[in-house]
Amino acid sequence: MKQSFANEIFMTYAISKAMEGVKIGQTPFGACIVKDGKIISCEHNQVLMKIDITAHAEIMAIREACKVLGDVDLSGCTIYTTCEPCPMCFSACHWARIDKIVYGAEIKDAKKAGFNEIELSAKQMAKFSKKIKVVSCKGLLAKRCIKLFDIWNYNISPITY
Amino acid sequence: MKQSFANEIFMTYAISKAMEGVKIGQTPFGACIVKDGKIISCEHNQVLMKIDITAHAEIMAIREACKVLGDVDLSGCTIYTTCEPCPMCFSACHWARIDKIVYGAEIKDAKKAGFNEIELSAKQMAKFSKKIKVVSCKGLLAKRCIKLFDIWNYNISPITY
Repeated sequence: MKQSFANEIFMTYAISKAMEGVKIGQTPFGACIVKDGKIISCEHNQVLMKIDITAHAEIMAIREACKVLGDVDLSGCTIYTTCEPCPMCFSACHWARIDKIVYGAEIKDAKKAGFNEIELSAKQMAKFSKKIKVVSCKGLLAKRCIKLFDIWNYNISPITY
Repeated sequence: MKQSFANEIFMTYAISKAMEGVKIGQTPFGACIVKDGKIISCEHNQVLMKIDITAHAEIMAIREACKVLGDVDLSGCTIYTTCEPCPMCFSACHWARIDKIVYGAEIKDAKKAGFNEIELSAKQMAKFSKKIKVVSCKGLLAKRCIKLFDIWNYNISPITY
């Protein structure tokens, strides 16, 4: 599958999952884990609904992928996430031996939207975990991810999205 | 409560919990969260038993503390952990607004024991999260934490511990 086509398809799933979360009062983050062109897991942030500060979208997607594959080793998987992973989520990808991280919005966008981010980018973190490839989306796909913050912050109706 | 006395008491709980894990085939890490002198949660690493790569001792203790307190904000809490938290666990402490991290063994000890650590120390991480105080134990207490790796790696009987 061509990379730009895969990005478009799987990031759209992640965005759609983030929107599901927003509609039930969760923060606007979604992540989707893919292996051999198939979606293994797709989750939104569940911190508020589960009262679990660790329940970021990427963490939930990794937990679910481990369960689905029956393995803590997610080698061969790519994670598509609407926002650049924070160091917690990046490190979870490292432990899971995920091959590649593809993200939309950046940590600075999340910070601007009010999230208490540690300002350590995924690309900085990647210097300490040499095997993970980190890819940022550009253009329209990134803009759609950034727009999730506006929808969440300004309570724009999902219907207009 | 005097800090050195608190370290001794609560780290002993964390070590004992790590040993519980070792006895059932888990990796040798334990963590204990304390607020106002009371233990809120105490967990060992559960990665293998839960088939969940994110189930580090600190993450499990944070999840449980959120559940016990009914809040994702763990301000006022201290986490005692047998090993210096990896960046995933450090960042979870940041998100949870934990006041202080007290640790025994160091990341380099875990790496030496065979764990696939990202070599970013808790003190390096703390530069990006200015509110968390990071304290490393020295002397006998640190040695007892490091010994957990020997017990796990060389299958030394817990009775001799």
